[in-house]
Formats: sequence, structure tokens, C-alpha cells
Amino acid sequence: MHSPDLTSVGIVTPQTARFEQRLTLRSGAVLARYELVYETYGQLNAEKNNAVLVCHALSGDHHVAGYYSEQDKRPGWWDNMIGPGKPIDTERFFVIGVNNLGGCHGSTGPASIDPATNKPYGASFPVVTVDDWVETQAQLADYLGIRQFAAVVGGSLGGMQALQWSITYPEQLRHALVIAAAPKLTAQNIAFNDVARQAILTDPDFHGGDYYAHGVTPKRGLRLARMLGHITYLSDDVMGSKFGRLLRSGAFQFNYEVEFEIESYLRYQGDKFAESFDANTYLLMTKALDYFDPTHHQEDASLTLALKPASAKFLVVAFTTDWRFAPERSREIVKALLDNERDVTYAEITSSHGHDAFLMVDPHYHELVRAYMNRIEQGGAA
Amino acid sequence: MHSPDLTSVGIVTPQTARFEQRLTLRSGAVLARYELVYETYGQLNAEKNNAVLVCHALSGDHHVAGYYSEQDKRPGWWDNMIGPGKPIDTERFFVIGVNNLGGCHGSTGPASIDPATNKPYGASFPVVTVDDWVETQAQLADYLGIRQFAAVVGGSLGGMQALQWSITYPEQLRHALVIAAAPKLTAQNIAFNDVARQAILTDPDFHGGDYYAHGVTPKRGLRLARMLGHITYLSDDVMGSKFGRLLRSGAFQFNYEVEFEIESYLRYQGDKFAESFDANTYLLMTKALDYFDPTHHQEDASLTLALKPASAKFLVVAFTTDWRFAPERSREIVKALLDNERDVTYAEITSSHGHDAFLMVDPHYHELVRAYMNRIEQGGAA
Repeated sequence: MHSPDLTSVGIVTPQTARFEQRLTLRSGAVLARYELVYETYGQLNAEKNNAVLVCHALSGDHHVAGYYSEQDKRPGWWDNMIGPGKPIDTERFFVIGVNNLGGCHGSTGPASIDPATNKPYGASFPVVTVDDWVETQAQLADYLGIRQFAAVVGGSLGGMQALQWSITYPEQLRHALVIAAAPKLTAQNIAFNDVARQAILTDPDFHGGDYYAHGVTPKRGLRLARMLGHITYLSDDVMGSKFGRLLRSGAFQFNYEVEFEIESYLRYQGDKFAESFDANTYLLMTKALDYFDPTHHQEDASLTLALKPASAKFLVVAFTTDWRFAPERSREIVKALLDNERDVTYAEITSSHGHDAFLMVDPHYHELVRAYMNRIEQGGAA
Repeated sequence: MHSPDLTSVGIVTPQTARFEQRLTLRSGAVLARYELVYETYGQLNAEKNNAVLVCHALSGDHHVAGYYSEQDKRPGWWDNMIGPGKPIDTERFFVIGVNNLGGCHGSTGPASIDPATNKPYGASFPVVTVDDWVETQAQLADYLGIRQFAAVVGGSLGGMQALQWSITYPEQLRHALVIAAAPKLTAQNIAFNDVARQAILTDPDFHGGDYYAHGVTPKRGLRLARMLGHITYLSDDVMGSKFGRLLRSGAFQFNYEVEFEIESYLRYQGDKFAESFDANTYLLMTKALDYFDPTHHQEDASLTLALKPASAKFLVVAFTTDWRFAPERSREIVKALLDNERDVTYAEITSSHGHDAFLMVDPHYHELVRAYMNRIEQGGAA
């Protein structure tokens, strides 16, 4: 049992919102109905204008802050950012975490039972996009009676959702916090995703996506995907200072067992993830990343034009050693916003932690978010 | 049939050198005997002092230049660099390409028959190191009657061999050309190698390395390893300009087939490689990369101290967009050589091609190598 943490939102309980209406996805596929699992922290005020939506990244979920029990050792994935007195202060804001459609932590996804067949969707679960997530999150907002978010916040793929919110529903958010994101993936980003997908798709235990019926999961593939992902989340710097060329046993073993500490770390991360995450969801999430491109339907692919509808104010944050979504990529967003004469605060945080920096405690980063959030008035625009 | 290429060495034939003496490897393992396959281009002069040894990288072999037949469409892997009138001019130099021990193109390796069992070595083939390669290349030099190379040349892992030659046999080479190399791998480099190895080792068709007996090869794993490798050989820049976000069919397909051109390219590269390369050799080569570290046996890991024995003159070349072995890594070598007051020429070539630039035609790069090689006198030190 951990000691009471006064900066934590405490014990939290996920809730489920059921949507019985048909949902037509960007791909044209239709879901007859769906569920979203979500958590909330803090109190929605009488005016219902202090809500903050937190969008998750590839492996995230709705459990953003707090603990599930007194015995629970690990809080939600962004507990360092969200809580009473924290940068996103739950004494002021009503914060919502939601597991995205297609997820594997309670919202309708590939492992859910398809009402049409009474079997898991598996391969028949449709590919979803950032647009689809924004659409379903907007339905959740309706369900909760929230007409306008004080802010939509996210890092990485979550930042892409915040950006898309500002385009799709400009009137429904006053602020967008777009952290460690990019306006679209590069060829190299897509390439890494495709290697990860191929690892899963070619795992003999994948069974074309219908592995649930075979009582197996494509663990080998998912483990490789996660190992590879991890390399791209960390900087060369931080890997060097944390692991360098440290040998596990102090001497070369001349075999294929764990030899360097970095191997031990990566394999452990891969194993842990492969036990707890659904491979079909991993595939979906990487496709949503690949597809994200607000300029996709334009002749001239101009981000400035794509962001024209946005009326929110923006905080854009990048981290110096992030090579997955480098600061240059955030600057593309900032430039397009400035072209549109939008109100944008941009910060490049000096950090050795690479892409993962957005999840870590860093005084400059946290004070920046705190200062920005403090600026947000609950009664309307900041 | 291709038109006669006057700058090519023409039709070449590989030869085999058999070594009947026991070879004790760095790991302590012993090979009772072994063979090396090699090719030579140009003529060894009467003084036997115009020989140039070309060391290959991860997927290279002894077929460095020329064609195997009039119908052969693809020349050796460094044909643009080596030939009559080319930067490494076969009208002046006697150039030797050799398939490294552990290789899969004719030299003794995991797929060779173990004389003790009359079966392929498979998992029992020992792990080899850059030191072992230098040792066996030195035995090949003896076999060919070459006491001193005019130069030992290599890119990437080949450059590491050239560097090790200068330390192990300082009197046996006058020049070392160390191109797109590093003095040792970083944690990130090792991490990428480990993901590649895990892809192979966990492929159900790997059978602990003894797949030959099962009539299968771990193609899925080797394919993934090669796809991943390719990402690290190319720069983000060149991937962006060659492929960008180009879609194969012009529209999103919302499935897991090839969607972006970059996926098509990578999968094709992976498939082709998995058909032609031996997975056990791939494992060995990546381990040799991981192990390479001339400072390994020192308390203080000083490259300056490690390079103290070297007496050759050096050309060190790096490429601006190489993020696998970035220019910073070459500069570490240059600094250590300068600390030892060695004669070193260093060039950073502006190229968009990433690590693979060392294999490409680039006028500045080729003219630099040409000028350096022209400086080499055949009668002794340049």
C-alpha cells in the first residue's frame, strides 16, 4: 500500500459510454454501435466550460491519472501532469481521459464481440483514423453535456488528435495543446511503422488477425514492434548515458543471449508489452498515424490552408532530442498557425529524453504547461 | 548482354584459398580448417607492393567489381569505385575482395559442412569478430605472397576492419581508408542490431540455427531484419525526396496491403534479401559489429591509446546525412589519430544518401578517393 499522495487524483474508476447509433468511419466502414471507456478527474463546473480532453498516443489509454486501488503501484500514464495542483490542475479543470475506438482497454476494438457474429471482430474490425477518433470523442462530449472544451491536450499521436479537433470542431475547444507531434508522418516514420506491422502480420500466430479464435496471440511480432518503437522513442543520447556499451556480465559471451544492457532493457520492454497489449490495436494505431495528414484532401497540400478553420489558441511544444517528431515538425505547425494569424505559443524544451520526454517530469516543460493552463479562464477565451 | 564497359574489370572468377591449419578465434572456439573465397582485379607487380585489400560490410562479399558473365547484369558491389581508370585504379593496383569468414557466399560459414559431423555447422558455427577477420585476411595475404598492402579499404563494417588492420598489423599496410565507419557502436546501433537478431532468432523457422536440416530458412525474420536495416542505411532526407508520402494507388486503402511507396520499396528489399542471404551469417555479422571496439581491453577505453600502434596513413571519410555512423563518429577516429601524430586526411562529404552514400557515385567523394589513391606510391610510403 502506497502512502497517500496529495498531488494525485486518488482512486479512480473507469466508466463506459454506450453509443447505439450507427457510426460511419472515414474508410466507409460502419459500426452498428460502439462503446467508449473513459475516466474523469475533478469537477465539471456549473457552466460546463472547464473540461479538458486528454487524447492518448499509440499505447496509451483512458487511465491518465490516479490509481485503481490502494494497492495499485502504478498511476495513470500522465499522472505527473494531471492532478490537484499539477500543471493540468484538477482543482480547476474537469479532465477526461478516453480509450480511443479500436483500443484494447475497454472501448470497442478488434478484441470486442461483434454483435453481428457474437465473435471477436478480429480482422473484420475496421481501420480507424484520427478523424474517426475526433468524431467519437465529440460524441462523448455530447454524452457528457460538454459543448466546448477549455482545452484538448495530447502528446505524439494525441497531439495530432488535438490538432484535428481544432480543424474539425473549431467552436468546440478554446485551446489546443499539441505536444511532441507532427503535422504528418515522414517516409521514415511510415517505414518504421511498416516494419512493426510486418512483424505482427507475418507472425504465424497472427492468423490473419483472427488469432483470438486460435487461443494464441502474435506475441513474437508485437514484441519486435515494441522493441523497435522503443528505439524511436528514446534519443541516442539518453540510450548512451543510460546504457552505453555496458555488458550484462562484464565480458563478451559470444552467443545470442542478452549481452549488452540495452538488449536486456529492450527485450524486457517488448516482453511486457506483448503480454498486455492487443496486436490488432497496435496495427490500427500505426495506420492512424500513417494516415494522419490534415492536407490530404487538398491539391497543394498546404498546412496553412488546412489549419484555416482553426480558431483555438495553441500551445505547441517540442523536445530538442526527439528524432521521431523533431522540433522542425512542430515548427511546421507553428508556421501554418502564424500564417493564419492564430494565437500560438511555441516552446522547444531542452531534454535528453527524445520523444518520450513528453511523458517525463521536466521542470521547464511542466512549468510551461502550468503557466499556459493558468492563463485559461473558465468563462470563455483566455 | 550488356555492351562492353571499358571502365569495368570485365569478367571475373572467384578463387578459393584453403587453410588447413587450426584457427583459434577471439571467442576461444577453434576451426580445424577453413576456406576463403576471393577475387582479384589488376596485376600484382613484381615487388608485390601494389595490393589493395577491400573489406566488405554486413551484406557484402568478395564480388567487389566486374561481372561473372557476358549476360550478368549486375556488377560487383563496389564496381563504381574499382576498375581501370576508376578511383581505385586496377591499372595501378592489384585489388583483392574476400568473403569474410562466417559469410554465406563461399567462405567457410554456418551453412558450410562441418568436417567433424558432415552436416552444416548451423548453430555450432562460432561467433566471429573483426579481429578474427583481420587474422584470416592476413593469412590470405600470406597465401598470396603479399607482405604489405598498399592500402586496406572499407566502408561501414569494412572500415572497422581497415582500422583494426592498422592496429593489429601496423607494418603490413601503408594506408587505411576508413569510410562511413565508427570506432564502436552506440547503444542505439546495438539496439537496432538486437531487434534484427530477435526477428531471426524468434522466427519459428530458425530452429535454433539448425534450419538447414529442416529444409526451411527463417525468411520472415531475415526479411524484417533487412527492412529495418534499410531504414538505418537511408537518410530521412532521401526517403522523403524519393518516396515521401506517395501512395501506391493514389488513395488510402484502409487495409494492411502495400499502401505507401516506401512500404513497397522496403518489403521488396526485404524479400529479395531473405531469398539470397543466410540468416546465421546475418546474425554473426551484426555481432561482429556490436563487439568491435579497439578500446575493449583497456581500463580507460581510450581510442587514442588503442590507435597508438597504428603507423599507416589514413583517409577517413564521413557523409553528412549518415545517422547510422554520423560524421561525429569519424571525427572521434580522426582525433585519436591526430593525438598520436598520425598522418590523416579527413573529409565530410555532403550527401543526401545517408549511410549508403559510401556505395554511391558522388563526384566529390570519388575524386577524393582518386586523389588519395594517386598519392600512394607503389614503392613504399606515399
